[in-house]
Amino acid sequence: MTETNLEPVELLVCTTCKMGRAIEDDTQRPGNLLHKALAEQDFPEGVTVRAVECFTNCKGGCNIMVRGGNRYAYVYGNLDPDTQLDIIVDGATRYYNTADGLVPWRERPEHFRKNCVARIPPLTLPQDAVK
Amino acid sequence: MTETNLEPVELLVCTTCKMGRAIEDDTQRPGNLLHKALAEQDFPEGVTVRAVECFTNCKGGCNIMVRGGNRYAYVYGNLDPDTQLDIIVDGATRYYNTADGLVPWRERPEHFRKNCVARIPPLTLPQDAVK
Repeated sequence: MTETNLEPVELLVCTTCKMGRAIEDDTQRPGNLLHKALAEQDFPEGVTVRAVECFTNCKGGCNIMVRGGNRYAYVYGNLDPDTQLDIIVDGATRYYNTADGLVPWRERPEHFRKNCVARIPPLTLPQDAVK
Repeated sequence: MTETNLEPVELLVCTTCKMGRAIEDDTQRPGNLLHKALAEQDFPEGVTVRAVECFTNCKGGCNIMVRGGNRYAYVYGNLDPDTQLDIIVDGATRYYNTADGLVPWRERPEHFRKNCVARIPPLTLPQDAVK
């Protein structure tokens, strides 16, 4: 279900991820390739793909992050730029279509369910998360 | 070196962390105990300790996060509420005393260096992180 008046979402892509490979040409880093490939994908208009350097989860690359508005933010790891573009588009689109970032568990791509590095509370903490 | 006009920092503590233990009384969860203990520590005035529920790094608990202003944010794991309060106070204070959140590597507590779960870019991305 798509809500209206959704706040924009950033899809941050770590361009320095090497997936444990020995890569001398930085432009060929898997993170860099993932960013370029995602920038060409068909996301909702409110989703912006941005390159960043290093989430410090280097052993679990490639890594992305989704955040925006007052949503919970998520870092996801172990993404393969060659095979998982569709998964990222699907997961990020579902995420965008929520106001709080909380896509129901069963509706998240399986890879997202199994490779969540961290969930970050929104800047304005929801009442039920504050004690 | 302490800078002036520093923006406030939130020290978020996951209160649901169980450190892999079988704990029936939620008030006795290590995350909850860590939050209570940190709330009584002596932080700089600009640092606020807040309770949150779950960074989804449950295998690596206890977990905390520091964020604030236009700093990079960090999630740290594998923290023990019985033995590491001083480390958290030290690391969070050093973090507070930066404008960008980037405490020089050698000045970070060793536990922070070895147990960084994720580094999150600030909402306004620094120029050198955008390509």
